[in-house]
Amino acid sequence: MTHDAIIAQIEFDAQGLVPAIAQQHDTGEVLMLAWMNRDAVVETLATGRVCYFSRSRGKLWRKGESSGQTQRLIELRLDCDGDALLVLVDQLGVACHTGRRDCFFRAAGEEHWHEVADKLVAPETLYGS
Amino acid sequence: MTHDAIIAQIEFDAQGLVPAIAQQHDTGEVLMLAWMNRDAVVETLATGRVCYFSRSRGKLWRKGESSGQTQRLIELRLDCDGDALLVLVDQLGVACHTGRRDCFFRAAGEEHWHEVADKLVAPETLYGS
Repeated sequence: MTHDAIIAQIEFDAQGLVPAIAQQHDTGEVLMLAWMNRDAVVETLATGRVCYFSRSRGKLWRKGESSGQTQRLIELRLDCDGDALLVLVDQLGVACHTGRRDCFFRAAGEEHWHEVADKLVAPETLYGS
Repeated sequence: MTHDAIIAQIEFDAQGLVPAIAQQHDTGEVLMLAWMNRDAVVETLATGRVCYFSRSRGKLWRKGESSGQTQRLIELRLDCDGDALLVLVDQLGVACHTGRRDCFFRAAGEEHWHEVADKLVAPETLYGS
């Protein structure tokens, strides 16, 4: 099984990356936005465990490798012009490093952002203190 | 009412852009991924009608200005590290220029992408022939 034909349709940017939206497959929750390079897409498809490319660390990031909060791939989707991915996942625990279920926990009010979701676990539980 | 404090928390990239995920607020459908610059965020908040920045046209893109398929802002969310937006919207009609409800209509199979959503309207109905 080769993923060449799948990779060929993805429009990676100048840095070789494509934005990937992780969505919980059954509830519809948008969990996070991260980035994938070619290797991350291939590994995700090959293993069924979601792998991103960490721009800050400059290397593959197997989601949950530190925190245990892994994402199992349900389905990978590509958008109309090929430059964005939607990753339908089954998220174990929490997606956000702050201990919240998803990363989008700030909502724009009249003049400021305000938090709309509580931490479900303490970050030090996820990563050690 | 000023949006300075809201804008100040957004980490725009080197091109002055931030990725914005549009999600239908009640069904949870991920409709599309587009980009916003500072002006697009301010206009969206000020008018309640979602405005992006078109990278291909190099200017503000008031979603639906050609097609009539507008997005009404329900809530704007920001992620944990400030470099991605989630735009909860009420989508009129279809979000995708192909005439499909959302842009993520290709799913990865064993070796190829396959389409998983039908066109709801003909593109030429949206933009003229």
